[in-house]
Amino acid sequence: MKFVIIGGDAAGMSAASRAKRNQPDMEVTVLEQTSDVSYSACGMPYNIAEADREIDDLVVRHAHVFREKQGIDLKTGHRAEAIDPAAKKVRGRTVTGDPFELAYDKLLIATGASPIIPDLPGFDEEGVMGLKSLEDGRKIKQFIVNHQVKKVVIIGMGYIALEMAEALRSRDLDVEMVKPRPVLLPWMNGSLSRVVKEEIERHGAKMYAGHEVQSIQKTGSGLKIICPDLELDAQMVIVAIGVTPNSRIAEDAGLALGIQKSIAVDRSMQTSVPDIYSAGDCADAYHVVTGKKTWIPLALRANRGGWAVADAVVGKAVSLDGVAGTAVFKVFDLQVARTGLSVKEAGDAGFDPVDVAIQARSRAHAHPGSATLHVQMVGDKRSGRLLGVQMVGREGAAHRIDAPAVALHAKLTVEEFSQCDLAYAPPFSPVWDPMLTAATQLLKKM
Amino acid sequence: MKFVIIGGDAAGMSAASRAKRNQPDMEVTVLEQTSDVSYSACGMPYNIAEADREIDDLVVRHAHVFREKQGIDLKTGHRAEAIDPAAKKVRGRTVTGDPFELAYDKLLIATGASPIIPDLPGFDEEGVMGLKSLEDGRKIKQFIVNHQVKKVVIIGMGYIALEMAEALRSRDLDVEMVKPRPVLLPWMNGSLSRVVKEEIERHGAKMYAGHEVQSIQKTGSGLKIICPDLELDAQMVIVAIGVTPNSRIAEDAGLALGIQKSIAVDRSMQTSVPDIYSAGDCADAYHVVTGKKTWIPLALRANRGGWAVADAVVGKAVSLDGVAGTAVFKVFDLQVARTGLSVKEAGDAGFDPVDVAIQARSRAHAHPGSATLHVQMVGDKRSGRLLGVQMVGREGAAHRIDAPAVALHAKLTVEEFSQCDLAYAPPFSPVWDPMLTAATQLLKKM
Repeated sequence: MKFVIIGGDAAGMSAASRAKRNQPDMEVTVLEQTSDVSYSACGMPYNIAEADREIDDLVVRHAHVFREKQGIDLKTGHRAEAIDPAAKKVRGRTVTGDPFELAYDKLLIATGASPIIPDLPGFDEEGVMGLKSLEDGRKIKQFIVNHQVKKVVIIGMGYIALEMAEALRSRDLDVEMVKPRPVLLPWMNGSLSRVVKEEIERHGAKMYAGHEVQSIQKTGSGLKIICPDLELDAQMVIVAIGVTPNSRIAEDAGLALGIQKSIAVDRSMQTSVPDIYSAGDCADAYHVVTGKKTWIPLALRANRGGWAVADAVVGKAVSLDGVAGTAVFKVFDLQVARTGLSVKEAGDAGFDPVDVAIQARSRAHAHPGSATLHVQMVGDKRSGRLLGVQMVGREGAAHRIDAPAVALHAKLTVEEFSQCDLAYAPPFSPVWDPMLTAATQLLKKM
Repeated sequence: MKFVIIGGDAAGMSAASRAKRNQPDMEVTVLEQTSDVSYSACGMPYNIAEADREIDDLVVRHAHVFREKQGIDLKTGHRAEAIDPAAKKVRGRTVTGDPFELAYDKLLIATGASPIIPDLPGFDEEGVMGLKSLEDGRKIKQFIVNHQVKKVVIIGMGYIALEMAEALRSRDLDVEMVKPRPVLLPWMNGSLSRVVKEEIERHGAKMYAGHEVQSIQKTGSGLKIICPDLELDAQMVIVAIGVTPNSRIAEDAGLALGIQKSIAVDRSMQTSVPDIYSAGDCADAYHVVTGKKTWIPLALRANRGGWAVADAVVGKAVSLDGVAGTAVFKVFDLQVARTGLSVKEAGDAGFDPVDVAIQARSRAHAHPGSATLHVQMVGDKRSGRLLGVQMVGREGAAHRIDAPAVALHAKLTVEEFSQCDLAYAPPFSPVWDPMLTAATQLLKKM
């Protein structure tokens, strides 16, 4: 069987490796347009934070291992440009401009996503950069050194923007952040996002929320970022306002698209066209809370989706549960975590949401070193179901979010979740874990 | 209504406080034999570790607050000695020897548990002490100072014994530990318990497993701990071989007892006798994995049980889910956690257990500061259910255990758990959380 994979990062290489394990005589070909495969994209801000580290430290498995140890025909520098589902062929061009054509029995589109760069004046200037591929990270590191960058403006205040703010501040660069909407992290209660804002400002990054960037101008000394009521100067601009799925090749081939133009897949990762699968940041997924389609491009589901496709192509029964929207990130000394729906998302999805925001201690009464944990919990008044949790704290948020994540998969009510036997020891938690305290408080409002 | 509570710690005072909130005109009387109420017993090892801290720092709420602010008739120094269910009366004696008698409409027995002290020669010598009540902690701290203790033998190697080893080593005392069974922490795989053993030895505590203490002798300089093939010298002996429920008063009153002589209660915490409830370390509970009765005396269920009784006595519908056996403790720089059943417990409970023990990293590929996380996971071959998880690591074990704990409450299969959307960011986890890696490995064996 000829299994062709377009895209050689998380989903693509996971699928390739597992397919060879599933069926060692399968012909597995991966087409990757860059020279980088299988790297930890999420690790880039932490790598960028350290001037002395090579970006290639983030490579999880090198190309020669896939080729020589695993027998995968990994073609880097091969850009797929078109799929012909009727003829079951992929056409494309190499970096040197040579056309190629490949036949497939099963095809996986794992083209990922790209940073959104607004079509506005000056966003194509040198020094204006997004961060998604390893090559992006490489360019940012080189640009900082080559241009002796002292000052950076980050457009956007989502998790990549915040991780980059930390990374650049740790290299002692001046950082200013700007975004059009006035509210930081709008998916959490103001009492939580305020804690994040203070943490960022405490570490010397300036935040300008509520300012829409209209253009970027090249100046003698660098770049000028222009909003109607604000101008910022920098030598480098990071654009981190979100990503968009690389679904053009799928759309052109007649595949159905879903939310935000992501590639629509069923629970076995099959697209609307037989024998074509999609996984990773380019594909959509089911949300375990709403039961509806969603598009949340994160690393775990990319890897999981890759595995699922590798199983599906050899005829194993595959049915993925979907995503809960679980995410965590670090902002300076804070852990920020979420799972499930925010209040607004819950309302939009047709639930009757009610929420609480509480403060709890991260350790037991009288135990030294305790920090404040801020927890928001959302439930559905009609069904009693737990819908989501948002959390911020100096310790204990990152892994604590997994407990409500499991509860969302199991579709527990807030009452059922409040009864769970969670771990307690003085160095790690109060007797009533903050999750349980939030659930108990939320129950009173339901 | 007259609500009488025997015992003024976690379960008793939780019940008293919530009962007054539920029904402010209720007459709530608490009989506590010591002078200490509402303290963090679990915090004692950490307090003992610090010579300069008062043991009374562990008091969560002071007696005068219960009395004056909450209107609870809190009678310290009152030892309940007998219950007359027919007459609905409690009889007892004060510290000064005065008899008392109290009528009740509803009664809560929250007498807790006491350390097991073997009935062997020398265990009644001065300097041989258990640790359960605040008074025990007070005595230990005073004894160390008054006798200038340099060397301690701890009998037992359970979590209190291990926490005490850490506490005493941090005060630079010599610590030797001894117990009859050859295996440390027998509920976990040898590859995990070995990590704990090495950590303890690395911190200079000596361990003698497989030696049964037969007697303790007073010597000129202190105490001699005598096993058939080993003698240890110390100035102080901590006996930490487990606790036993304080259920004598219940047994004498004709109440049914359960496992290990704990007081049998239903899901609303009612005993076999109408209008008498029990909660806390003296009462039994349902295990969410087996569905059968168990006795696992831990703090959370004591507090939760107290609340449940306060609700039940005012006629609210109460039905507690039970315990999952979730526990975590710190041993020097290690976090040791468990939830659900060990392999042996699973077999004993009639399951067909299969398990894996894996090693994973606590952080992402290439992220600095990563530590090894050792995870054991147990599933049931017949039903596919997740039965339990055991975990050891320098970071990331304490809160990670809550995810499988919730899965046990929800009775998820290993397959369902393996599909959960757990949080990932490089500083906190690999892409595949160690819980998911363990589940995936376990699935292959099921």
